Amino acid sequence: MVQADKKLTEPKKFDLNNYLKQKKVLVEQALDSSIAIARPEKIYEAMRYSLLAGGKRLRPILCLATCELTGGTIEMAMPTACALEMIHTMSLIHDDLPSMDNDDFRRGKPTNHKVYGDDIAILAGDGLLAYAFEYVATQTQNVKAENIIKVVACLGHTVGAAGLVGGQVLDLESEGKPDITAETLSFIHTHKTGALLNASVVSGAILADAQKADINRLSNYAQNIGLAFQIIDDILDITATDEQLGKTAGKDLEAQKATYPSLWGLEKSRFKAQELVDSAIAELSTYGAKAEPLRAVAKYIVTRDR
Amino acid sequence: MVQADKKLTEPKKFDLNNYLKQKKVLVEQALDSSIAIARPEKIYEAMRYSLLAGGKRLRPILCLATCELTGGTIEMAMPTACALEMIHTMSLIHDDLPSMDNDDFRRGKPTNHKVYGDDIAILAGDGLLAYAFEYVATQTQNVKAENIIKVVACLGHTVGAAGLVGGQVLDLESEGKPDITAETLSFIHTHKTGALLNASVVSGAILADAQKADINRLSNYAQNIGLAFQIIDDILDITATDEQLGKTAGKDLEAQKATYPSLWGLEKSRFKAQELVDSAIAELSTYGAKAEPLRAVAKYIVTRDR
Repeated sequence: MVQADKKLTEPKKFDLNNYLKQKKVLVEQALDSSIAIARPEKIYEAMRYSLLAGGKRLRPILCLATCELTGGTIEMAMPTACALEMIHTMSLIHDDLPSMDNDDFRRGKPTNHKVYGDDIAILAGDGLLAYAFEYVATQTQNVKAENIIKVVACLGHTVGAAGLVGGQVLDLESEGKPDITAETLSFIHTHKTGALLNASVVSGAILADAQKADINRLSNYAQNIGLAFQIIDDILDITATDEQLGKTAGKDLEAQKATYPSLWGLEKSRFKAQELVDSAIAELSTYGAKAEPLRAVAKYIVTRDR
Repeated sequence: MVQADKKLTEPKKFDLNNYLKQKKVLVEQALDSSIAIARPEKIYEAMRYSLLAGGKRLRPILCLATCELTGGTIEMAMPTACALEMIHTMSLIHDDLPSMDNDDFRRGKPTNHKVYGDDIAILAGDGLLAYAFEYVATQTQNVKAENIIKVVACLGHTVGAAGLVGGQVLDLESEGKPDITAETLSFIHTHKTGALLNASVVSGAILADAQKADINRLSNYAQNIGLAFQIIDDILDITATDEQLGKTAGKDLEAQKATYPSLWGLEKSRFKAQELVDSAIAELSTYGAKAEPLRAVAKYIVTRDR
């Protein structure tokens, strides 16, 4: 009896791989059914090509997890989760263009403009961005109208000049300047990567009608994992192979881009990433076992190899 | 006495020029204060460069006029009016890019990419598009939350593959094919021009909490003036000078684009435009004098010379 009791009360180890796999299936089903092909077919195909090209689906999963953590449901958050992936995909399509980062491969497949041409790639990005907002506005169910508006505001702020776009501009301006400051590098990444991870977490909480204090705590969590995520990205660009990354490795060094490893070295960069993940996890202390998915995602960020 | 009475009851002729001038001043003030310069300065400057480059401001003015007609106020509609101009500007910036229509001049000034480069021009468009949604969501006052969400949905639908983006794709595909059908030409223009004019009118009515029947009537008005507007645009591309247009005239012929004049000839095109304007005005019969601004705008569309 004692042993049986122990079994019942002992917390089961959280299986992140299984969690991510299950949620990814849900997200990909939702993404697949979010865009139907219509006239002119080519633009819908181009949008679907990049949106359904795989990837970790980390942003949608964070949105779903945070919504559940703060008392909401998967169903309430799914349209926003899809919108986050549409926005992320749009930013990848535009960043990969020849006039920007000029990348030929993404997630192991030719980039959008390599398949459809620069004109269609620009328009596919525009189409995904516009559709993200339409999708949230038309598909979100059982959420207070005020909260849907807050999510729209949050997504808009995150993509625009105050977020992704601003980060990409400073990133482009910093190319060929390997001696930029840590402050500029941090600006680039809090805008380019951090902002959308933050929006993923915050929007999930807004949809669940979470309290301000919870939203702030979760936003701190997101900002910490966002920066850790970028540091690890920079490290992987040096240490991983093309095959592991699904894109060209070593691009940063080639483009003379300042990165965390170039600023701090590999060892200190790894240490900093771990420190950030520890801080992120500390923000979750009040939530107990319910926050296991978010804790596991934070840990995964520093241990991933692609 | 009789004469004085007659003066009082005789409807004063509506002064459209004065109306457009006054409303344009209001819209430009609102646009100017909508975007402040922040870091990185270049992107905000690029966004402001095109947003504040002049133009008729027809879309915002239609939104304000329709909101007032259906019982709302200028203040309720101004954030959406600005968003419509941000969206319109974004579509011009992206359409002008070398990989699309490759235009060097717009509204008498060098196009965005000519001043800031292709990369920044793409990002300025993205920034304006994202900001349009953020602006509606954060700035709209005294409007039911449900109606703000409907406006977001309407704007998203209008920009995306089901609207502007889809129209531009079919337009690009039709280049060098002067023998496309009237049906394809109509698809291009109902999406490229008509959709945003329709959204301008419909969103104004939604914000004022108008009835479904009013929205339908005003949407019919908008679709008719939208097509008339495009026919006149095609005519002006042939008959006007570069100076009048503020952009290169004769581009359609050069690009071997099918246009209404190439399909119908100039005379029949003018006749059709007039017919559409008459139909548009007929939709407004129930509104009496209140609808004079919308009637005058419809008439202006066929008589303008740029």
